[in-house]
Amino acid sequence: MSFGPVVDELIDALKILPSVGQKSAQRMALMLLDGDRKGTKRLVNSLDQAIQRVGHCALCRTLSEYEVCLTCADQSRDHKSLCVVESASDLIAIEQAHHFKGLYFVLSGSLSPLDGMGPEEVGFPELFKRVEMLSTQEIIVATNPTVEGEATAHYLADVFRGSNILITRLAHGIPLGGSLGYVDGGTLTHAFSGRKPMSDES
Amino acid sequence: MSFGPVVDELIDALKILPSVGQKSAQRMALMLLDGDRKGTKRLVNSLDQAIQRVGHCALCRTLSEYEVCLTCADQSRDHKSLCVVESASDLIAIEQAHHFKGLYFVLSGSLSPLDGMGPEEVGFPELFKRVEMLSTQEIIVATNPTVEGEATAHYLADVFRGSNILITRLAHGIPLGGSLGYVDGGTLTHAFSGRKPMSDES
Repeated sequence: MSFGPVVDELIDALKILPSVGQKSAQRMALMLLDGDRKGTKRLVNSLDQAIQRVGHCALCRTLSEYEVCLTCADQSRDHKSLCVVESASDLIAIEQAHHFKGLYFVLSGSLSPLDGMGPEEVGFPELFKRVEMLSTQEIIVATNPTVEGEATAHYLADVFRGSNILITRLAHGIPLGGSLGYVDGGTLTHAFSGRKPMSDES
Repeated sequence: MSFGPVVDELIDALKILPSVGQKSAQRMALMLLDGDRKGTKRLVNSLDQAIQRVGHCALCRTLSEYEVCLTCADQSRDHKSLCVVESASDLIAIEQAHHFKGLYFVLSGSLSPLDGMGPEEVGFPELFKRVEMLSTQEIIVATNPTVEGEATAHYLADVFRGSNILITRLAHGIPLGGSLGYVDGGTLTHAFSGRKPMSDES
């Protein structure tokens, strides 16, 4: 069943969206073309605008429509601590927790030599320049708890060993609201070895 | 946390897609703008093309980029039976079952006077013209098994009562691969009252 090449091409193009396969793309295409098309036109315009106007922040490399993003431009933030993340969406997740008040640096993913992602591809030279420029006192490594993310964290720790910059890693442990029965062994091991006296808890 | 008005507008615009809320829209926007943007440009172009070129078939009113859609133009199909559906996606679902070989007519939804959907809004005048034009012998009413869909089916049956056109309705019953324990009472009632001698089964 085909509506013709134009709709088929639209369905194919929609499949670049995350978690959208043939069925969802078909449903989206029908919805976008059925009924009145105001929303569809708005989507085309805003995508077009975004492609033209959104680039990367010159300092932290997150997505931004300004030369320097709002976070980097915010003078009230702590310029001495720098949080290193793998992607702009990790940065958002941390920002939405409203806890960290320092600056960020967004890598282009994590070290994965087999996929051609070495230190240069990931953006370490730019990170080192940024650290020097800020005279950073603490680098918080917030890469993902995957093999590649851990490798990236260890690489950074190695590079800065001997410098007077403190390198820290986000704590691993049991997530809030989780049930112990569903937590994997690796996480439980981390939770045990990272246990704290209860008077320390905030 | 905001990347600025252009990205926020894109996130808002993406929310017109079915089952896409704030979180998914945010994830889609980041994905569309991160990395290389070939796929995003392709999406913009194909949406734009589709808005300009896809309209409705002059005969059956399904989405089509031709004046008359490929199904209506297919001379090998049975022009004497007409299947009436509520939307283009219902038409696709039926086509993908590869069973029905007649023609279609796509209503604009179903009768729902409280929402302002009367016989004219739903497209009955066009349906009657089409039935006359084709000298249809059977109308298969494939509206959804909802209150509105049933009302639409009954309305059609009433209109054609007394004519020599056979009006049929898709069978209700237990879906294949389903488990009796999960089937609702209404469906079970239909399945019982529609039961067939086993020698009849194809």
